Amino acid sequence: MSTVLIRNGTIITASDRYAADVYIERGVISLIGRELSLPADTVIDASGLLVMPGGIDAHTHLDMPAGDTTSSDDFETGTVAAAHGGTTTVIDYATQAPGQGLHPALEAWKGRAEGQAVIDYAFHMIVRELTDQVAIEMDQMVRHEGVTSFKFFMAYPGVLMVDDATIFRGLLKTRDNGGLVCIHAENGGVINALVNEALRRRDIAPRFHATTRPPLTEGEATARAIALAELAGAPLYIVHLSCSEALEGVRRARDKGLAVYAETCPQYLFLSAAEYDREGFEGAKYVMSPPLRAAQHQEALWGGIRRNDLQVVATDHCPFCMEEPPQKQAGKDDFSKIPNGAPGIETRLMLMWDGGVRTGRIDAHRFVDITSTSPAKIFGLWPQKGAIAVGADADLVIWHPEKEVTLSAATLHMRVDYNPYEGRVVRGAPSTVLSRGDVVVDDGAYVGARGRGRFIRRVPGRPAGL
Amino acid sequence: MSTVLIRNGTIITASDRYAADVYIERGVISLIGRELSLPADTVIDASGLLVMPGGIDAHTHLDMPAGDTTSSDDFETGTVAAAHGGTTTVIDYATQAPGQGLHPALEAWKGRAEGQAVIDYAFHMIVRELTDQVAIEMDQMVRHEGVTSFKFFMAYPGVLMVDDATIFRGLLKTRDNGGLVCIHAENGGVINALVNEALRRRDIAPRFHATTRPPLTEGEATARAIALAELAGAPLYIVHLSCSEALEGVRRARDKGLAVYAETCPQYLFLSAAEYDREGFEGAKYVMSPPLRAAQHQEALWGGIRRNDLQVVATDHCPFCMEEPPQKQAGKDDFSKIPNGAPGIETRLMLMWDGGVRTGRIDAHRFVDITSTSPAKIFGLWPQKGAIAVGADADLVIWHPEKEVTLSAATLHMRVDYNPYEGRVVRGAPSTVLSRGDVVVDDGAYVGARGRGRFIRRVPGRPAGL
Amino acid sequence: MSTVLIRNGTIITASDRYAADVYIERGVISLIGRELSLPADTVIDASGLLVMPGGIDAHTHLDMPAGDTTSSDDFETGTVAAAHGGTTTVIDYATQAPGQGLHPALEAWKGRAEGQAVIDYAFHMIVRELTDQVAIEMDQMVRHEGVTSFKFFMAYPGVLMVDDATIFRGLLKTRDNGGLVCIHAENGGVINALVNEALRRRDIAPRFHATTRPPLTEGEATARAIALAELAGAPLYIVHLSCSEALEGVRRARDKGLAVYAETCPQYLFLSAAEYDREGFEGAKYVMSPPLRAAQHQEALWGGIRRNDLQVVATDHCPFCMEEPPQKQAGKDDFSKIPNGAPGIETRLMLMWDGGVRTGRIDAHRFVDITSTSPAKIFGLWPQKGAIAVGADADLVIWHPEKEVTLSAATLHMRVDYNPYEGRVVRGAPSTVLSRGDVVVDDGAYVGARGRGRFIRRVPGRPAGL
Amino acid sequence: MSTVLIRNGTIITASDRYAADVYIERGVISLIGRELSLPADTVIDASGLLVMPGGIDAHTHLDMPAGDTTSSDDFETGTVAAAHGGTTTVIDYATQAPGQGLHPALEAWKGRAEGQAVIDYAFHMIVRELTDQVAIEMDQMVRHEGVTSFKFFMAYPGVLMVDDATIFRGLLKTRDNGGLVCIHAENGGVINALVNEALRRRDIAPRFHATTRPPLTEGEATARAIALAELAGAPLYIVHLSCSEALEGVRRARDKGLAVYAETCPQYLFLSAAEYDREGFEGAKYVMSPPLRAAQHQEALWGGIRRNDLQVVATDHCPFCMEEPPQKQAGKDDFSKIPNGAPGIETRLMLMWDGGVRTGRIDAHRFVDITSTSPAKIFGLWPQKGAIAVGADADLVIWHPEKEVTLSAATLHMRVDYNPYEGRVVRGAPSTVLSRGDVVVDDGAYVGARGRGRFIRRVPGRPAGL
Repeated sequence: MSTVLIRNGTIITASDRYAADVYIERGVISLIGRELSLPADTVIDASGLLVMPGGIDAHTHLDMPAGDTTSSDDFETGTVAAAHGGTTTVIDYATQAPGQGLHPALEAWKGRAEGQAVIDYAFHMIVRELTDQVAIEMDQMVRHEGVTSFKFFMAYPGVLMVDDATIFRGLLKTRDNGGLVCIHAENGGVINALVNEALRRRDIAPRFHATTRPPLTEGEATARAIALAELAGAPLYIVHLSCSEALEGVRRARDKGLAVYAETCPQYLFLSAAEYDREGFEGAKYVMSPPLRAAQHQEALWGGIRRNDLQVVATDHCPFCMEEPPQKQAGKDDFSKIPNGAPGIETRLMLMWDGGVRTGRIDAHRFVDITSTSPAKIFGLWPQKGAIAVGADADLVIWHPEKEVTLSAATLHMRVDYNPYEGRVVRGAPSTVLSRGDVVVDDGAYVGARGRGRFIRRVPGRPAGL
Repeated sequence: MSTVLIRNGTIITASDRYAADVYIERGVISLIGRELSLPADTVIDASGLLVMPGGIDAHTHLDMPAGDTTSSDDFETGTVAAAHGGTTTVIDYATQAPGQGLHPALEAWKGRAEGQAVIDYAFHMIVRELTDQVAIEMDQMVRHEGVTSFKFFMAYPGVLMVDDATIFRGLLKTRDNGGLVCIHAENGGVINALVNEALRRRDIAPRFHATTRPPLTEGEATARAIALAELAGAPLYIVHLSCSEALEGVRRARDKGLAVYAETCPQYLFLSAAEYDREGFEGAKYVMSPPLRAAQHQEALWGGIRRNDLQVVATDHCPFCMEEPPQKQAGKDDFSKIPNGAPGIETRLMLMWDGGVRTGRIDAHRFVDITSTSPAKIFGLWPQKGAIAVGADADLVIWHPEKEVTLSAATLHMRVDYNPYEGRVVRGAPSTVLSRGDVVVDDGAYVGARGRGRFIRRVPGRPAGL
Repeated sequence: MSTVLIRNGTIITASDRYAADVYIERGVISLIGRELSLPADTVIDASGLLVMPGGIDAHTHLDMPAGDTTSSDDFETGTVAAAHGGTTTVIDYATQAPGQGLHPALEAWKGRAEGQAVIDYAFHMIVRELTDQVAIEMDQMVRHEGVTSFKFFMAYPGVLMVDDATIFRGLLKTRDNGGLVCIHAENGGVINALVNEALRRRDIAPRFHATTRPPLTEGEATARAIALAELAGAPLYIVHLSCSEALEGVRRARDKGLAVYAETCPQYLFLSAAEYDREGFEGAKYVMSPPLRAAQHQEALWGGIRRNDLQVVATDHCPFCMEEPPQKQAGKDDFSKIPNGAPGIETRLMLMWDGGVRTGRIDAHRFVDITSTSPAKIFGLWPQKGAIAVGADADLVIWHPEKEVTLSAATLHMRVDYNPYEGRVVRGAPSTVLSRGDVVVDDGAYVGARGRGRFIRRVPGRPAGL
Repeated sequence: MSTVLIRNGTIITASDRYAADVYIERGVISLIGRELSLPADTVIDASGLLVMPGGIDAHTHLDMPAGDTTSSDDFETGTVAAAHGGTTTVIDYATQAPGQGLHPALEAWKGRAEGQAVIDYAFHMIVRELTDQVAIEMDQMVRHEGVTSFKFFMAYPGVLMVDDATIFRGLLKTRDNGGLVCIHAENGGVINALVNEALRRRDIAPRFHATTRPPLTEGEATARAIALAELAGAPLYIVHLSCSEALEGVRRARDKGLAVYAETCPQYLFLSAAEYDREGFEGAKYVMSPPLRAAQHQEALWGGIRRNDLQVVATDHCPFCMEEPPQKQAGKDDFSKIPNGAPGIETRLMLMWDGGVRTGRIDAHRFVDITSTSPAKIFGLWPQKGAIAVGADADLVIWHPEKEVTLSAATLHMRVDYNPYEGRVVRGAPSTVLSRGDVVVDDGAYVGARGRGRFIRRVPGRPAGL
């Protein structure tokens, strides 16, 4: 198998920074040193560039059925786009169908990914019904299948929402089997009442998506989920935290010493509810749940990242087209029917570098931590993934810290006909991306093999020190 | 110059863990890799051992004048003891004499250390008088002398204590010159009143040292120092934080996003005020300021370490003998005359491993962080010190995680006739210690040259991401 | 109609204290002055005694159907007991039956009380189903029937529990109609799961009632109810708050300026979970929901009373006999079948005086406030009730501050065969009790007419300044 | 002596509201009742009006020496103005001169007031030096002189400021003698440094008075004073609290159960730092300490009033003329030389009614409480003052709730040539004011005798329930 030598780069890990060359054998980092002069099949000159662990996107929805339609990126287009953005692993959400067990769901999602994904992937499992049999399957998932995390929804009554007792039983399960419960924390009952009120008033435009999901509905649900986890003695992971009300609950929990983790997403750090005021149906581009928030939440979230109350920045990548096909149009006359979600798998690292590191809000180490090392640790991928270390998979992004990119649906690689950041100019972007030692993206072109990604079995267990 | 190869060890950094060999040239790490087969003058087999950055002790008082006496360890005995304990750098406190400038103080302390210290050392500066001339010298210290931190005392009225206005002007200075103010945070005025009351009641025994310095005197002073720093727009470092009242102030400050850092010490994590109830004059062994606290503060401090409200564990090593010579006896009839301080430079890492990592309170990465990486970053020593990285000084401790040691004045190397932890059995201890690639301690024996330590100029600047 | 003159007493109101005589005409206070010499049908000498507003018990369950049985006090025995204890008004909970409207429920409860009650009474309404029709009835209750408060249960799934959306719609209703939502705040879903687990383990004794309803289940539900009220923009009243976790939620809400009120009960101030360790089935006497808590919650609740985070002390009087008849025995082999509730309507003022005023935890003004004036203001009875003021109903308790009473089922007047405080000696008790100017209790004997109590229509509207 | 009958009014106390007539004999309330038909020397028709306890102003500086000048109101002009505004008692600050004892200070201030004041008055004592002898005098003041409160300054270094040890010793004294320490809480040392910096930059205009006393200097000092009081186990009273930073400290203290009280003033509720931007030297009118704050602090303070974190609204009345004589001009070229203070003794109740009760921020009961009942209780005047109760002094304000008044120096009665609220129209004002049963103000005219006010000896002891 081939060898790779990355020369003259500056290595950035979650804690350290140093100039060194990296040598890769059989897809694994074997040597780190000064001025290595070893024969290599591929030599990459990283002068002036940073060598960082490839991004891990802990929250994606590729090829996901949603009512009559499907999220517009499949595992091929989605992972190619991810790679373009410097992400080398995704953890996608497999979904239990009503009446179905967890194994068929896992098989279905594996089927979607195999031969399609170009980078490595793993799965969380969405639990919609927790029968005694499903509870047994949760153990099997954790112990035998490498699926160690389970999402429960507090929103979407009648579709995905489960009641508190179900979540609580799920938490008792993971307390015992070493798994981790992930929570979509919004109070679905209250939101439903607000949506019904809005529709009764004929408030049907996209912006009412936001007004009917006020921050406190997320804050309440987050606090409730934390209370359930504390009662169960189980760790907890809050997905796509978007507002200070929810963050405050996480902060209090962590101040008490609870094993509560939370993720936010670039959209909550860089976009605000002002987008819903765009003219016509344009606001539909930003219909996702939780919705975009008032701008003042952004700095609160950055504070949460700095204080490690937020450990992960993921994307909740779940794209639907505006026109081709007209997926978002389903809610033309009723905001509540707009498919929820937006694209983000490709732009995460660029946005976080430009808006986080370049602005001084975080340093490069924290950038690596929240985009790669911490998700790897929380979800049982580390140290195989998420580290630049001898023996780790050579999933690397060679980063050009000054490269200027204009974000646009036209030039990005996600299969969706708009981009939420259309026209935004960012500085800092991948120069070369390696997956297990294979150069997959080079100077803006995908150069890897098709369908080369592998399913990664994750390891259960609560991460210390996070 | 000689080369060293450390084989088969497991490297632990503040964020990562991996099996690799380390190659050292000219005192610097040059290569990290799997199964290195390179010629080396010294080969160390680290099978089953951990290779970690050597400890950095950010708070020592070696050869320190104190009234009529001097702390009992000088730079030779103190640094030999430090090395035995796995610490490879100390930052000692030079003290401005009344009426004196800062340069003479620095020269005096350099004179004490040069040719004596066996590991590398740097200096903080204690400021007792802040005239306009001294303010100019603060700039010179930061810019030209590599002394980038300045301690002010809120305690010890008539001796070291300065008023709020002085601290505030010191903060304005460091805000501008990139330095860092360190604070001994206890309300000296209140404590003095309480001490006078106690002596009036003839409460003269060592235990009244603790009752006259209640936690709130530290909590108040800590909050006040933080307010001054916030008003000045300057970063702040709280030394030897001992109690939950003070920690709460730090937590609030950090939740607000202020650049406030704090250190605690093993004595506050492992010893309690119960020690003052020992019979006779034995309590004098534990007379230090702040005093030991009620046991419930300990878990609060561990929580602070986990939450990164406390970034540093240092020692405040400042030993005085009980009998030979009878230094502590000065306070036989008046606790307020007992020299304040206790030994700790040698036992820090062993205590933190045994009581922190082995108990599950922190993981090995956090251990490295608080004992080495974070102090290096906060005090401008990183990445030369505090990291295992290509290009960093090879200051390393090869750690035996299961080695059992009985702490005792008889076998430890500090020059003091008692040990606060006498008889305590700990697991986890240095096997071999390297300073700039020189093996200085091997299997319990000091094997380095005498006086080999070097003065390290520190680099100003606020650490991002801490 | 008759006149009454109370001479030489010391009047205590929620804010003032002064020596004065009180003259009553037609059941109403008409004159307050020094040394009144007016002709009166009845002259009471209150020398050395305190004259205070009669107690208002805002939470009772008289003659309440509960499964196969009924709470053991009816409106006659219960209100006679109340009067003996110095309480002159009760607000009882009428309960909507499934499928029933609110009007029939009100009529049913009026039927239970009329001709039975010996003191004045009003009704809250328990809402179990909130159809559109019931929502209309809520308006009618507030506007036409003098029933201005509605309780919703977050506990007892399958029986009384409603979901968040229902509570939220109830809050929107009261926001608009000036009513007030009362909440039983315990997370029924989690409790059910814990109860099922306990029964599966054959943990069937009364003490498992407490372990399966941990404080956090109440804290969570309280916080959730507050969030729903904040989202709805409606005031909220938490019934029988029992623990510091719930109190903390109320405190935060009130610090934010929300109109959140809360009541606690003597049992949570004077009894603890230790009662459940009594031998045999004795613990069943203390089976109520929320359950008794660990002793440390008591001082937190007293703090809440002092800080006005708790405005009301009511009883949740809901007695069931141990033996005659064996009501509590229903849960002999399964704690979850023990009827929930305990007697308290008679002992409230004596306990609060003895344990509150005499211990210095509160002063006599706060005693009047929490037992009478504040509930009157919150529930729309003031200033007709809850005040010593010209024009107010002469509902008065003439209090002997030093009278010693031994609490015992044998001597108290509630129709139940045990007392939770059996044998406790308290100081401070009613000497004479007047209801609308009628002496109803005199020196321990009921001397009023039978069935003399009247239904009081309450006035909607949010109380300012509470 | 004469009798007075007030007919047809509505009585408002801190807790109650009712229609009743009030009969006054020998200056004391003797009878309260419906439609009293008693012979009276004076009959007042209060139809449509409210009868409330006269205001108590717990913070005034009448005839106060300040450098080369004196506050412009003496005890005659000041108390006449107070009476016009509905205030019937003032507690003025007597000041210990350097080197002087407390008795001479008390005699001096009594001399200033006797024969001058037209309403009753009491004194606090400002302590500048706390020698052992002065400590003894503190006891004598409390026990024999009716002076039960002592103010210490944390600001004005070199003039009034004392150090922490002095305050702490003062607190230990009052802990033992039942007195109360009042604190001017601003960090004088930091402020001095900021003032010096400002003057060095030639920032000499009035607005720099505010920028050199930022809120955190008050927040810090407040927290420090509270810590000292907690350490001493003594109650504490914070004067003229102006900002949310300070309020937060008080809130935390009270949440802990500490006996900490605080006062704010109308200027902090109704005026903001924007006044300092007035053109020319106009800002000098608003130079007081603490300075006016940014507008957002106002709602925080109102929240504090509602939550009872602030118990008292006083004035800190300390007027200096702008032109005649040019007292404020002393600081024409140096803001730090502007005499600190502004007039307010006459406008307090009108502002609080108009801006508090009429806006719905507080109800009329809370209005009575913060302007009269609570200060009376805290400072040992109650129930002689601060209550409408049989036996209490007939210090009453008969209030016209709708009367419109335009505040203006031209029509108000304070001896000062400007008014901070010039032109503001308020609704709600005194119709008639009685002091010990004497009508002193009637329909806008002072009709009382000259010098009729009496010195009131206050009673030590901590108020329960506040």
